[in-house]
Amino acid sequence: MSRFRLHVFVCENRRPDGDPRGCCAARGGEAVRAALKAELKKRGLAGSIRANGAGCLDACQHGPTVVVYPEGTWYGGVTAADVPEIVESHLVGGKPVERLLLRY
Amino acid sequence: MSRFRLHVFVCENRRPDGDPRGCCAARGGEAVRAALKAELKKRGLAGSIRANGAGCLDACQHGPTVVVYPEGTWYGGVTAADVPEIVESHLVGGKPVERLLLRY
Repeated sequence: MSRFRLHVFVCENRRPDGDPRGCCAARGGEAVRAALKAELKKRGLAGSIRANGAGCLDACQHGPTVVVYPEGTWYGGVTAADVPEIVESHLVGGKPVERLLLRY
Repeated sequence: MSRFRLHVFVCENRRPDGDPRGCCAARGGEAVRAALKAELKKRGLAGSIRANGAGCLDACQHGPTVVVYPEGTWYGGVTAADVPEIVESHLVGGKPVERLLLRY
C-alpha cells in the first residue's frame, strides 16, 4: 500500500538555452503539471492522486513526459490541453490515452 | 512493463528560508540523490534503476523523503550515508531498510 492511489510525475527539467537535447520545461512541462494539479483539485482527487514535479525522466526527445505510478504508464508530447482527457479517461476511468502513450 | 525496473524519486524541493515546513533540499535531499546516482553508476545499475529528482513529495515533516516505484516504498530521514545500504539491501536484494521506512 502506497500513500497515493496514483502518483503522477511530470518532467519539469530545465536545461540551458541551446542545449541540443532541449528540455521538458521549455516544451511546456510546467504548464502540464499546473493543469494536472488544478484538474485534480477541481475534481476533489488531490488527496488520492498526486501531480508531482520531477527532474529529468530521461526521455527528453519525447517531452514533455509524464509517468504514472505504480502502474508505470508513460506519456510523451503532453500538453496542458491533454490533461482533462488524461484525468477523465485514465486516472479516473482506468483507460490510458492511447495516442499519447510511450511504449517501453 | 515500465522503462526502469525501479524508479527512485528523491525529494529536492526547496522552500524559502524561514518557511515553517522546512524542505527536503535544506535537509540534504540533493546530496541523497547525488549519492544514489553515483552508487547506481558504480554498480552498473544506472540503466535499470533510475535516481530521479522530484519536487515536493508532500511528506515534508519526514524529509528528506524517497519513494521507490513501482512498489511504492517510502523512506524518510534519509542521508547520503544511508544510500549504499538502501541500494544493497533493497534495490538489489529486495529487502527494504526497515529503520528508514515511512509506513503509509
